[in-house]
Amino acid sequence: MFQIPRGTRDFTPEDMQKRSYIENSIRSTFKTFGYREIQTPTFETLELFTAKSGEGIIKEIYSFKDKGDRKLALRPELTAPVMRFYVEKLQMDSKPLKLCYFGNCYRYDRPQKGRYREFRQCGCELIGTDTSEAYAELIALAYSILKNVGLKDITLYVGNLNILSEIFKKLKLTKDQQKYLIPLIDKSQFNDLSKAMIDFNIKKEDVDSFIEILQISDINKVENYIIKDQIAQEELLKLKNIFDLLKNSFNIKDFKIKIGIVRGLDYYKGVVFEIDAPILGAEKQLCGGGAYELIPLFGGRETPTAGFAIGFDRTILALESEGYVLPKPKLDIYIIPVREEIINKSIEIAQSLRKIGLSVDIDLLRRGIGKSLKYASSVNTQKTIIIGPNELKQNCVTIRDMDSGKQEIVKIDDIPNKIK
Amino acid sequence: MFQIPRGTRDFTPEDMQKRSYIENSIRSTFKTFGYREIQTPTFETLELFTAKSGEGIIKEIYSFKDKGDRKLALRPELTAPVMRFYVEKLQMDSKPLKLCYFGNCYRYDRPQKGRYREFRQCGCELIGTDTSEAYAELIALAYSILKNVGLKDITLYVGNLNILSEIFKKLKLTKDQQKYLIPLIDKSQFNDLSKAMIDFNIKKEDVDSFIEILQISDINKVENYIIKDQIAQEELLKLKNIFDLLKNSFNIKDFKIKIGIVRGLDYYKGVVFEIDAPILGAEKQLCGGGAYELIPLFGGRETPTAGFAIGFDRTILALESEGYVLPKPKLDIYIIPVREEIINKSIEIAQSLRKIGLSVDIDLLRRGIGKSLKYASSVNTQKTIIIGPNELKQNCVTIRDMDSGKQEIVKIDDIPNKIK
Repeated sequence: MFQIPRGTRDFTPEDMQKRSYIENSIRSTFKTFGYREIQTPTFETLELFTAKSGEGIIKEIYSFKDKGDRKLALRPELTAPVMRFYVEKLQMDSKPLKLCYFGNCYRYDRPQKGRYREFRQCGCELIGTDTSEAYAELIALAYSILKNVGLKDITLYVGNLNILSEIFKKLKLTKDQQKYLIPLIDKSQFNDLSKAMIDFNIKKEDVDSFIEILQISDINKVENYIIKDQIAQEELLKLKNIFDLLKNSFNIKDFKIKIGIVRGLDYYKGVVFEIDAPILGAEKQLCGGGAYELIPLFGGRETPTAGFAIGFDRTILALESEGYVLPKPKLDIYIIPVREEIINKSIEIAQSLRKIGLSVDIDLLRRGIGKSLKYASSVNTQKTIIIGPNELKQNCVTIRDMDSGKQEIVKIDDIPNKIK
Repeated sequence: MFQIPRGTRDFTPEDMQKRSYIENSIRSTFKTFGYREIQTPTFETLELFTAKSGEGIIKEIYSFKDKGDRKLALRPELTAPVMRFYVEKLQMDSKPLKLCYFGNCYRYDRPQKGRYREFRQCGCELIGTDTSEAYAELIALAYSILKNVGLKDITLYVGNLNILSEIFKKLKLTKDQQKYLIPLIDKSQFNDLSKAMIDFNIKKEDVDSFIEILQISDINKVENYIIKDQIAQEELLKLKNIFDLLKNSFNIKDFKIKIGIVRGLDYYKGVVFEIDAPILGAEKQLCGGGAYELIPLFGGRETPTAGFAIGFDRTILALESEGYVLPKPKLDIYIIPVREEIINKSIEIAQSLRKIGLSVDIDLLRRGIGKSLKYASSVNTQKTIIIGPNELKQNCVTIRDMDSGKQEIVKIDDIPNKIK
């Protein structure tokens, strides 16, 4: 027997129904915000990803060689491919560009709960604008997507990496020191962070107030903390404009400022945001995004860029943890011809119902009524049509409601009315 | 600048709109026939594909090694993965199983016109029944899918491999000789076929009548040709039952018998069919399928199986060659706030229209009306809403129809009525 590769999944009809529901919901929210869908290949040149994320990413990536001996890699994420696409082919398009995409991504690490080697992501890029309303809309879009799929309890955090960078500067932390601290900030490991900063010769009281600011969601306290730093003040003002738009125009009230959002200081700049589902505990982040500078790295002309990515699996997990009942596959009608000579006429009826868009199956094994009804239940059938010789002579069939078990005899021409 | 890997494609919003249209159409036809969607991973163990297609397939496949040193391969087709899924997890499900799937496949050959290294396929499997009505429904499904996407001119050929096998036996061709002839039959290279058969010591008149039968669509002539072969006669009778169902119950009249359909004699058995779009010339086959025995090969219990696959790219190519106009991406509404202080109110209006499902964009660059209208045209906008301070005082906005250029002043509350 052959086995599925480790860390990957097969999806049953039940799984797919859930996943399609989520995907269609997300797609339609993107659409209402004027986003247009694009797609890039499943693999790219390996150097595209090392250019963005460094050589370190190679060990986390599926890579292989082309016949032309070129190194290729299954994409670990979607932003680099989309930036490559933009630089190669879309630079001349009218700005801003609002692009969204769905795609499977691949990660070569140890499979764990909720982490797979093949996983689905969706995301978007907003290219060519950096106004407050552009960022506010982007954040509102991410928030709306997750609300529209049906999530009740999500937390939106908004920060600004330029403020954090300024604080780092004031604390006289070197780039290497910053690199060491960032993962600790990201994972809220404040004890380790404190120890490391003291090792870097930062005064205890400065460490304590820095760590306090990372955890605070009171914008006035943040303002006081950076009161003497003009650049940070200006960046905070930008954030305030975004907050006003979110509150007053987008009607989103429940967001929090978070200075401690760190998302790859190498290319993220300015506004950043994250959306969590607290119900998921440690693996709670559903969405992350912000403004970044990647286009020049890929050889394009500098232009403001922002975007976000949403993980599918965690979104489904969060929905189900909240008790949301995702739709199950169902069959509108199952047709049972009670005798062989009725099959022809039964198929005709099936075809006429399919033509009006109903999902219709018919017994293809010439079974008895009992077995057929059992099968119909197993595929979640709504109504069964039983076609017997006597009713057929009167141009009638029996319709059985599978929930209630109630049966009625109906003229063939009336079936569509009775079903709808 | 980074480049897209050779033989792969980026899809623009225009491309994706077409592809989504096709995919949704195919998906909904599958659904009306009671099929349920499943999905398998993008890569599988390499041995899954060599087990089905022999070691020869390795040179046509993208393969790479797992960290556990296991050979993996990007799937070149979808049937083997689905059979693996079935054997691993679905064998106990109620029969028949009607499974459909969509997925990208990968082929390591030289890119040529209409052939890509990454390409999309869809297909289905019908597992657990071999009645005439099961095969007729499967063929009708393939035909309906292609008709429902909008194709006008397609040709459906139906054959039966058991008849061809019987003819091979009567001609006393060895398995190796058959293997040599099959590609010639598949490609209708009748001169080469004739020469090869004469080399194999088949009498000239037998060769000629065999080649005639391969090209004939007259079922009576086929019947006369195999009149002395009881097994072939029985298989032809099965085919006739299917033809009767197609004609009388499924209302499909324009199919042809074709004894020369050859689709991997190793595992295809019995009924086979192909659907061509003649407008595409040499690369005209859109769909191929039939009955096959693969489950035992993958370690499962023998059960009748049939299915088909449809290529996306050729289907789109055929549609466009027939002059079918595939839908373009469009934006329902583009909102232009004429002054900065109107942005807030404009966003509110945008949000209220998004809530009722309209696709709405808004100027995010604070441009003038002229530039904004130009941008709105570039994203195929239906209506533009221009929001100025004077109209706003009256709770009004200006709606501009982008086709006619006609403008009218409308109360904010009336916008939804005016747009729909």
